Amino acid sequence: MWKSLKRTLVGNPISSEQAQHERLNKKTALAVFSSDALSSVAYSTEAILLVLLAAGSIAIGYLVPIVIGITILLAILTLSYRQTIHAYPSGGGAYIVAKDNLGTQPGLVAGASLLIDYILTVAVSVSAGVAAITSATQGTRLDFLHEHRVALCIFIVIFIALINLRGVRESGAIFAGPTYLFILSMVALIVVGFFRYYATGQTMPIPSAENVHYDQSVGSVTHSALTGGALLWLLMRAFAAGCTALTGVEAISNGIPAFQKPESKNASTTLTWMAFIMTVLILGTGFLAYKLNAHPAGAEETLVSAMARHTFGSGVFYYGIQAATAAILVLAANTAFADFPRLASLLAADRYLPRQFANRGDRLVFSNGVVILAILAVVLIVIFKGQEQAMLPLYAVGVFLSFTLSQSGMIIHWLRERKSEEAKARILKQEEQQSLHRTEDPGAATHARERLRALERDKGGNWLLSTLINGAGAVITFIVLIVLTVTKFTHGAWAVIVLIPILVAMFQAINRHYKLVAAQLTLGQVKPDRPPMKHRIIIPISGIHRGVLPALDYARSLSSNGHQITAVYVEINPENTEEVRSQWEVWGKGVPLKILSSPFRSITKPLINFINEESELHKDSITTIVLPEFVPKAWWQQLLHNQMALLIKGKLLFSKNIVVTSVPHHLRR
Amino acid sequence: MWKSLKRTLVGNPISSEQAQHERLNKKTALAVFSSDALSSVAYSTEAILLVLLAAGSIAIGYLVPIVIGITILLAILTLSYRQTIHAYPSGGGAYIVAKDNLGTQPGLVAGASLLIDYILTVAVSVSAGVAAITSATQGTRLDFLHEHRVALCIFIVIFIALINLRGVRESGAIFAGPTYLFILSMVALIVVGFFRYYATGQTMPIPSAENVHYDQSVGSVTHSALTGGALLWLLMRAFAAGCTALTGVEAISNGIPAFQKPESKNASTTLTWMAFIMTVLILGTGFLAYKLNAHPAGAEETLVSAMARHTFGSGVFYYGIQAATAAILVLAANTAFADFPRLASLLAADRYLPRQFANRGDRLVFSNGVVILAILAVVLIVIFKGQEQAMLPLYAVGVFLSFTLSQSGMIIHWLRERKSEEAKARILKQEEQQSLHRTEDPGAATHARERLRALERDKGGNWLLSTLINGAGAVITFIVLIVLTVTKFTHGAWAVIVLIPILVAMFQAINRHYKLVAAQLTLGQVKPDRPPMKHRIIIPISGIHRGVLPALDYARSLSSNGHQITAVYVEINPENTEEVRSQWEVWGKGVPLKILSSPFRSITKPLINFINEESELHKDSITTIVLPEFVPKAWWQQLLHNQMALLIKGKLLFSKNIVVTSVPHHLRR
Repeated sequence: MWKSLKRTLVGNPISSEQAQHERLNKKTALAVFSSDALSSVAYSTEAILLVLLAAGSIAIGYLVPIVIGITILLAILTLSYRQTIHAYPSGGGAYIVAKDNLGTQPGLVAGASLLIDYILTVAVSVSAGVAAITSATQGTRLDFLHEHRVALCIFIVIFIALINLRGVRESGAIFAGPTYLFILSMVALIVVGFFRYYATGQTMPIPSAENVHYDQSVGSVTHSALTGGALLWLLMRAFAAGCTALTGVEAISNGIPAFQKPESKNASTTLTWMAFIMTVLILGTGFLAYKLNAHPAGAEETLVSAMARHTFGSGVFYYGIQAATAAILVLAANTAFADFPRLASLLAADRYLPRQFANRGDRLVFSNGVVILAILAVVLIVIFKGQEQAMLPLYAVGVFLSFTLSQSGMIIHWLRERKSEEAKARILKQEEQQSLHRTEDPGAATHARERLRALERDKGGNWLLSTLINGAGAVITFIVLIVLTVTKFTHGAWAVIVLIPILVAMFQAINRHYKLVAAQLTLGQVKPDRPPMKHRIIIPISGIHRGVLPALDYARSLSSNGHQITAVYVEINPENTEEVRSQWEVWGKGVPLKILSSPFRSITKPLINFINEESELHKDSITTIVLPEFVPKAWWQQLLHNQMALLIKGKLLFSKNIVVTSVPHHLRR
Repeated sequence: MWKSLKRTLVGNPISSEQAQHERLNKKTALAVFSSDALSSVAYSTEAILLVLLAAGSIAIGYLVPIVIGITILLAILTLSYRQTIHAYPSGGGAYIVAKDNLGTQPGLVAGASLLIDYILTVAVSVSAGVAAITSATQGTRLDFLHEHRVALCIFIVIFIALINLRGVRESGAIFAGPTYLFILSMVALIVVGFFRYYATGQTMPIPSAENVHYDQSVGSVTHSALTGGALLWLLMRAFAAGCTALTGVEAISNGIPAFQKPESKNASTTLTWMAFIMTVLILGTGFLAYKLNAHPAGAEETLVSAMARHTFGSGVFYYGIQAATAAILVLAANTAFADFPRLASLLAADRYLPRQFANRGDRLVFSNGVVILAILAVVLIVIFKGQEQAMLPLYAVGVFLSFTLSQSGMIIHWLRERKSEEAKARILKQEEQQSLHRTEDPGAATHARERLRALERDKGGNWLLSTLINGAGAVITFIVLIVLTVTKFTHGAWAVIVLIPILVAMFQAINRHYKLVAAQLTLGQVKPDRPPMKHRIIIPISGIHRGVLPALDYARSLSSNGHQITAVYVEINPENTEEVRSQWEVWGKGVPLKILSSPFRSITKPLINFINEESELHKDSITTIVLPEFVPKAWWQQLLHNQMALLIKGKLLFSKNIVVTSVPHHLRR
């Protein structure tokens, strides 16, 4: 039953040979990998405004420079990541880039922060998607959905997990439509919004104070007092809030191997498209919100919902925009479901996570990663009660930490590349010189000179430009990281700061264990010829009945070449002992029976003691415990029997030179 | 670590020989077995008033006749149960009496209803005890306790369970003090209460309407309309509410074997003491509440707390009474912890419950029963949020059902006894007659006549009186049962009515299973001489490493008398196969290696299929799977390895003619 349920939900198994076909074209890849980055527009403008407006309505004026700043940051990141994509065609996630160029520790830090962020991506995006739905349903007959927010979120997470367990291409096909619908509907909102504003000059109504829950951490600063330090702090906080728009930019560079060939070129083109669309949406919504003097109402209704309602009224267009927003936010979670399992499998392949994460399931998906991600995201959603604005402070820190590590890694990458080029050039120069001296082959010198020139022409100034681009990226993302950490520390970012080193320590403990195991399993010092084993056999019996006979027969068939064999009976009620002894005379076939007394009525304890003593006495032998075991017909019947076999097996698992053999007696009814 | 924690909490093991010493003297037994019955005074008067006062203040006048009616019912029950105690000196719980005299089905019904009621006893008493505490702390700095009611209840349940896991005498010693303190303080409350009332004439203040939550099920009936049906319904409901005072009366008759010798006499005396004390407390609190015109305030403060505050003020005496009330209520839960495990063990011994309930733990306690009771009580407390008045409608139905069954059983018991006496008398009369005719032994007739007279003198009219007493008990408890069921059905009693048949069906399913197992285990048709077994051995290997060698050696030592042996390797990554094959040439010692391909990357599936096919092909042989198994040093390391051995064992457990042997390879680090 469980099996057929699994097949219905997840689909039939796919064989390893079909693996190659599961690749994405550019349009599908844009949907799969950029929904995270695109969808953050649905909450990032609101997050900026919630910070700014706490300092007074007039602070909305800072919205425009902040969104411009964020798009500049986006441009730098895009340039940086295009380089990474070409330098690491097999997938240049921050983990790999940092590990290759900066060393294991920075690589693990990047890996840990990315894993945390993927979990947050799922939790934040699904919660924001549900907020888009409940914004639309408020005041309608579906108003009750707001109450059941958390259940709705969990349902959606499970739905996405199931789609991902089916496999990556099918999920791409499901997700492409809504992504493009979202892009279209946001562009429509921006265009129509501006048109309507310039036609009518109408701004949005400002909600009454008691309905609005602005971020109060900037204190009671009023706009007139906003100078110097206070103003800087306000702008830093607003900018940090807006940086959540940039989470997900790195997704494409992690997922290059999922692209159709040529992978790097396709991925790089897709990244540029994505950055362009993001810039349009960030600037468009930012400017429009500024012009409309939008004041988000906090928990009740999202900013996008309010702007759409203002622009289109509560009609078909409005509901279309809300549906598209909800859909892309839900899809954003899907990005994490593509990336988390892939990163976990890389860590597992390097032995920093349990090897189970590196196994592909029968649909070629890293199923364990998908399942764990779903569980952890649900835990987060439950903790934060599905409120995405409460999770945002935890969100961007990990992303920018991995950005910084990845960009710094790329600097080292280019410097190394340059060194190897210089080395190559030196060798060519030497060849040229030598051939000049030798003169017997005048063409050789010319040839070497030509190769040298080609080398310089191809790569010449490139390393410098590349280093500068990634250098700028590294410096800027590092500054943003500091700003994020400082401004969001007390709002939850501390948890991420604490968790990262714990995860890194865990990775290292796991790695240490695997290395120790490998060392213990090498055949290096083992001789192929080992002396034959001696056996002793013990059969614990609970009485004389039919269930004991197969075990006795089995033990006797093992002992036919002279191994010693003993039956053991633990006496709980001494009245029965004589009966057991005389019955054994009939059925025991000459195997000696040992009676163990048990003053404290435990069956296992005297038995385990006896077995351990015997094993101690005969250290040169293997002691085999032949255990008669009931197997009932239905699982619930198992509960009606003492779990002696299980207990005994569990207690002997860690004893040396002891082997436990269960001889099942199958009950027919 | 777990072991030493267990020893600290539960104590050192007690050997079976010490069993006899764990008996209770009368004073301790009164504390252990009657705290349930005595403590119900703490909520039963309040329960009656909550029903009456819903019909208007003046209905308090019915309180006095109702408490008198309840004490009459108590007297009848006491007389009935004294007879049961003498007739069933080894413990005459309703289960045994009903089963012996009415048959299995009624016995199981009684057993089910008692089990349910013991769980309710724990939940209700602990909740009421916590209510006594929070009544006392309201308005003080400890006011916050009211909020954490449920947590407090759970803590107390766990505490009682631990004491009971230590063993019955020790728990008696702990519990004796508070029981007597409660009796004393209640007597003091009644005496001082009346004294103060007659000295000052002061009645209690009536709380304002909005603070009072009376039972509204009698509807909007006002006192003036209380005639005929409405009045009868009110009185029935009030009486039913008061019947909760009588729960626990049967406890002593269930627990006779725990008394010191002579058990029956001691138990019967203890029962009379208990009934006397209960009568004093029920009448005393009832009359006092009537005189003081007490109006309980519902959830905020208990009736006993309000009366004590009125009588003594909020001083030391008041807090003493609350402490004693809380203490005895908590102890009442302990009665169930003595009785539930004992009844469960009787049912288990008769094979109606899993046999694990019949095992005594290492402290001579039926530990499994204690643990299960604690868990179920906690579940109830959580469901009802620790409000004992909400649980009361479920409470008394089971008790009175078992009362009725037990009393009916006793009627049959006496009728049977009479029959056997008559049969004896008939034999004696025949002997007398015969000896008269024979005349060779004239003394024999006289002797027979004397024995006949003695028989008539001893038991003569007794059977009639006994039948009448138990008959009256049966009729009255049956009427009360009907009243309880009708008046409380929609308030929760339906759940008990539904649950009892489900439990009975479960008992019977369990019994059926055990009987089937016993039938399948008899040696009846088995011949002691069976042909020797043929063996085939299969070793699944995951690669060639040190962990595989012990298994190989072990398998070879088994196969030395000609059993066939095969190694099996599942190929996930075909690139490694050649390496494995050539390595096996070196290490395999001539054992053939079978390579299984796995297109869907599953390790277990091809392996299990292969094993099953082999086993099918060679039905005359036993197939032994020798499984190399890693045993890591620390438990968490287990998570880092694929649980192949476990999966394989699980999947083969239900296959016939297959035996699985794990050969452990212990990792040292």
